[in-house]
Amino acid sequence: MVTIKDIATHLGISISTVSKGLNGASDISDDLRQLVLDTAVEMGYSTKRSKKEEFRKLCVFVENMEYETLDSFGYDIVLGFRQNAYRHKWDVTIVPITPEFQEQEKYDTYLLKHGYCGGFLIGLALQDEWMKQLKHTTMPTVLFDNAIDNNPNVCYIGTDSYEGIHTAVEHLSNLGHKKIGFINGSLGSLVSDQRQEAFESSMKEFRLPLNNKLMAHGYFVAESAKYHVPGFLEEGATAIVCANDLLAQGVIEYCRSKGYRVPEDISVIGFDNIPIAATTTPPLTTIAQQRNELGKCAYVCLNSLIHHIPFSKVLLRPQLIERESTTRVKPTTTKSKHQISR
Amino acid sequence: MVTIKDIATHLGISISTVSKGLNGASDISDDLRQLVLDTAVEMGYSTKRSKKEEFRKLCVFVENMEYETLDSFGYDIVLGFRQNAYRHKWDVTIVPITPEFQEQEKYDTYLLKHGYCGGFLIGLALQDEWMKQLKHTTMPTVLFDNAIDNNPNVCYIGTDSYEGIHTAVEHLSNLGHKKIGFINGSLGSLVSDQRQEAFESSMKEFRLPLNNKLMAHGYFVAESAKYHVPGFLEEGATAIVCANDLLAQGVIEYCRSKGYRVPEDISVIGFDNIPIAATTTPPLTTIAQQRNELGKCAYVCLNSLIHHIPFSKVLLRPQLIERESTTRVKPTTTKSKHQISR
Repeated sequence: MVTIKDIATHLGISISTVSKGLNGASDISDDLRQLVLDTAVEMGYSTKRSKKEEFRKLCVFVENMEYETLDSFGYDIVLGFRQNAYRHKWDVTIVPITPEFQEQEKYDTYLLKHGYCGGFLIGLALQDEWMKQLKHTTMPTVLFDNAIDNNPNVCYIGTDSYEGIHTAVEHLSNLGHKKIGFINGSLGSLVSDQRQEAFESSMKEFRLPLNNKLMAHGYFVAESAKYHVPGFLEEGATAIVCANDLLAQGVIEYCRSKGYRVPEDISVIGFDNIPIAATTTPPLTTIAQQRNELGKCAYVCLNSLIHHIPFSKVLLRPQLIERESTTRVKPTTTKSKHQISR
Repeated sequence: MVTIKDIATHLGISISTVSKGLNGASDISDDLRQLVLDTAVEMGYSTKRSKKEEFRKLCVFVENMEYETLDSFGYDIVLGFRQNAYRHKWDVTIVPITPEFQEQEKYDTYLLKHGYCGGFLIGLALQDEWMKQLKHTTMPTVLFDNAIDNNPNVCYIGTDSYEGIHTAVEHLSNLGHKKIGFINGSLGSLVSDQRQEAFESSMKEFRLPLNNKLMAHGYFVAESAKYHVPGFLEEGATAIVCANDLLAQGVIEYCRSKGYRVPEDISVIGFDNIPIAATTTPPLTTIAQQRNELGKCAYVCLNSLIHHIPFSKVLLRPQLIERESTTRVKPTTTKSKHQISR
């Protein structure tokens, strides 16, 4: 266990100077404070301040994700985290971050400097600088939809992608669909990989044909739909599974603009169950991520890490929300008969 | 939400009789009480009694596992669960169960009858009767090392098998071992499947040869070793990964009885880090399951399920404990050179 004295000895300065650096006192220079903080992090010093009530502070970092408006994906996650943290007398700060910010500020140093006892990170990309630093962080950290192997200070939390996609495919299979398309999220993301595997294995489980022309990686926005749906329709898809609700909204709009009826001609199913899912025309059948619970659960995990319970991976259950964008497959016409018999 | 009145209407009896049946009053017959309980379970009635302090009761069911002595695998798991539950003012009962018991008593009915608000189940086998019933249980339930798909009332908790086996293979690979044997646990168990997959993918990752003659499924007892080790030695294994410490103990004893030195001639690594691991000759290098934390975490999950946070899967980190049963591979002799070049 590294102490303030160890840091002082290492730097050849007094204990009181180290203490000032760690506690943000104003009578030392910025450069010296930064040196103290960086050295403390490098030596694996971890703050004891969590024991004092006034220093019970946690930080939520958000990147690439809307969270400030009621209808945004991140809103309920952040809310759930704060609800649970406040109940247990933690103060919570929300800090939006960018890749540039991560290049400027070291993760551990940032937490230590501001007196945070742990961090909850939402929306980070695999190639982000902090994702590299998290491999060795000594700060209790919960990551949403991203995993770090072999570091007991980091826990991955998310929705069970496998069960979610399996439930979507099962729902469509029960409605008689065979030619099911899949617009996944962007390549190079942990959840996209999980969902791809889940889609392929679920299709096999229900003895449905896998067709590369009916699978694509898109982005999590409505505009992404128009690049993939034309090919799916040409290939005879009767249903499309989308990696999020915005994509599904884009699919519905594109299909309707081309004269296809949803769900009579083509069924569409989303993922997430954000508020717009209930207001699309027709209202969207989707796989709900229980986002308020994810936030609450993230707090439970972070608090456990702070108390040295080495949570590694925590998945919550998704839930099928049936609305009106999916229905039984149309009775086969000559064309689709031909396609099905291929 | 099913009420006592619904049950009374369904059975055509008075509300007070239903109430007596549910609360264990003595002035109704055993048969009638059982009928009330079974009907309540079938109709999805769930007890509200958790709100009253005197009824805050949880039950731990243990099958196929030692837990009463300090050196047993289950001891720390049960202890951790009780420690956390007591701190939050729950009463905990430990109930050892058998397959026969499960045939006689329905899971949900048993919990309801005895006023338990939730169950933590350890050591159940895939083919157990209660495993079937858990697919539809309405009672908050945490399962150790077993998963139930698609039921939001059940959560799976365990150690990250993938990371554990990966760490073992990495450790041996770093010591120069190439011919690594693997004695897995019994077939038809969730963790055995996970560990098998982890062993094969880890061997591939470290570019080590996979050899069917160096992989076997055994049982979690020392006696199992003698059926597999002779073949492994004949095949030129220089290291053996074992699915638990008892198996590893058996491997060490067998090797020594045949004149092989551990670790000079053959390295052995266990799994679990139960107390005997420190007292074998030589002391056993092993992958620790943090069992006290697993128990504490099981309580956190069960309490979350009771509060409708749908935990599905929770994995804790394993930890490499280096002792003396593993060492650098012997410099190659003519024989082993020949084997390596195959």
